Amino acid sequence: MKKFADRLNAAIRAKGTPICVGLDPRLDKIPDFVKKHALEEAGGDPLAAAAEAMIAFDRGIIDAVADLVPVVKPQIAYYEVLGVEGMRAYQQTLSYAKSKGLLTIADAKRGDIGSTNEAYAKAYLSEPQFFGEHISTIHADAITVSPFLGLASQASFVELAQQQNRGVFFLVRTSNNDSGEFQLGTIQGGPQTLTDRLASWVHQQGATLVGRSELSSIGAVVGATHPHEAHALRALMPNNFFLVPGYGAQGGSAEGAVAGAIPNRDIHESGLVVNSSRGLFEGSTTAKSTSEFQSQIRDNCKRAQGELVRALSPK
Amino acid sequence: MKKFADRLNAAIRAKGTPICVGLDPRLDKIPDFVKKHALEEAGGDPLAAAAEAMIAFDRGIIDAVADLVPVVKPQIAYYEVLGVEGMRAYQQTLSYAKSKGLLTIADAKRGDIGSTNEAYAKAYLSEPQFFGEHISTIHADAITVSPFLGLASQASFVELAQQQNRGVFFLVRTSNNDSGEFQLGTIQGGPQTLTDRLASWVHQQGATLVGRSELSSIGAVVGATHPHEAHALRALMPNNFFLVPGYGAQGGSAEGAVAGAIPNRDIHESGLVVNSSRGLFEGSTTAKSTSEFQSQIRDNCKRAQGELVRALSPK
Repeated sequence: MKKFADRLNAAIRAKGTPICVGLDPRLDKIPDFVKKHALEEAGGDPLAAAAEAMIAFDRGIIDAVADLVPVVKPQIAYYEVLGVEGMRAYQQTLSYAKSKGLLTIADAKRGDIGSTNEAYAKAYLSEPQFFGEHISTIHADAITVSPFLGLASQASFVELAQQQNRGVFFLVRTSNNDSGEFQLGTIQGGPQTLTDRLASWVHQQGATLVGRSELSSIGAVVGATHPHEAHALRALMPNNFFLVPGYGAQGGSAEGAVAGAIPNRDIHESGLVVNSSRGLFEGSTTAKSTSEFQSQIRDNCKRAQGELVRALSPK
Repeated sequence: MKKFADRLNAAIRAKGTPICVGLDPRLDKIPDFVKKHALEEAGGDPLAAAAEAMIAFDRGIIDAVADLVPVVKPQIAYYEVLGVEGMRAYQQTLSYAKSKGLLTIADAKRGDIGSTNEAYAKAYLSEPQFFGEHISTIHADAITVSPFLGLASQASFVELAQQQNRGVFFLVRTSNNDSGEFQLGTIQGGPQTLTDRLASWVHQQGATLVGRSELSSIGAVVGATHPHEAHALRALMPNNFFLVPGYGAQGGSAEGAVAGAIPNRDIHESGLVVNSSRGLFEGSTTAKSTSEFQSQIRDNCKRAQGELVRALSPK
């Protein structure tokens, strides 16, 4: 298997876009016709119906975008709400996305002490071994990780990404409004900000995971809502993939989303993966049929792609 | 239902100890006789056998300590490694602990932006609603939360703790060696450290969740490995429960574990919950039978309780 960075880069080139479709299957955002059908299928069992509705919603999206985008990013929180049934839906969605040739990023933002991170890394980046057999459970191609407990504690994620040719996106500068108080504070002894320290560390950790694409499988989450910082962070992480949340619904513009691009490159060679979730689903919640739902999402997806290309074009 | 702080305080008084038993069902720490039996029961299916072994291990521990301690804390990472089967084991362990009268803390360290935290809070602190029905999935009595993405983003956890009479332990000062670089850095604009800012915020958030015990259901994770800081943090969080990791295996002493006690109180009125995981299982991994396994754990538990009481006694 090729390095994650090379697989992601090749997929972005093949599809001609860096858009990552966020799968956020909140029950209140799933169209009524999907939920009604799921409730019938599940014989009225509300928990099984919720899981069915999530799976159907995810499949509908995946079918709509599989030829348009390189990668999908399920947000695991929405699956965890359903417990066992949610984990089953999560695994099915991952499998389905893979079967359609899509890469997958588990948006899990896990982050704990080293011994616990070892378990999380095993879960999300490998086929773990039980009684001598490797078994596929919930691994994706990459995971998002919250590194704020401490940098040495993150070793297992980097090690497993290396061993398994998978990827990690460490939170460096998140898109939420209230992120500055901590991320723009300074580390013990100063003068670096937490964000800059994380950026330098991500770059260093990724050095041995650079592929033929000249990009590293160790990446950073850098929100679209901080364009000036994203531009500056690119200098600290010249060859690391940026996973960019916050474009659209959270107030990040297309210009903000591409602010961290590697300079003087096409959109699909810019070291960016731009997530779109809520923006892509605009107008889809009230759809009355699968075809209406899917054509709305495809339209939104193409519009977003146009916006990103224009934003990156020389002015 | 009473407030979480009052339920926890009452349980600590009833058992006469603030020890929380950490459930970390790593397959390599589970005694061979348990694994062998699980493999037979599961007809040789390695994933089902791993889940069975975890459930049996957890039950063995719960049976051993149910009359000795107030609360158990499953570390969800070890269950996630098994995917769907792991989530099933996790739910069974939670139910079993509750059936034995134990309180439960989900050691999940979740932490994301506000909209995602809303889903996590629902999952871990409530019986979520699906198609109009409230259904019990994975909730515990309390959860650990990583608040480093931003403080406003944590609102859902506090709201649901209030509504559902459950608890939250926000990471304030973690026990890992590499925690200081970020946690002892200063917030944007300074001069407070991240830890002190978090502590003041936890105290403020907890103000409306103070029970008859005069303790708040909004607590803090404060590691046993930083005794001087724990003492200082008590002044910032005079009525918040401290969940104390790091006692034993991570190098924290009994003195370190009780350094954050509310001054001049008995051990079971001191606003502390002291976690013990690896320390409690010393010598149990090689046990040849359930009774040997359980008596080793009970001995370790009583020894730990003696150490904590001595550590808090006037010198």
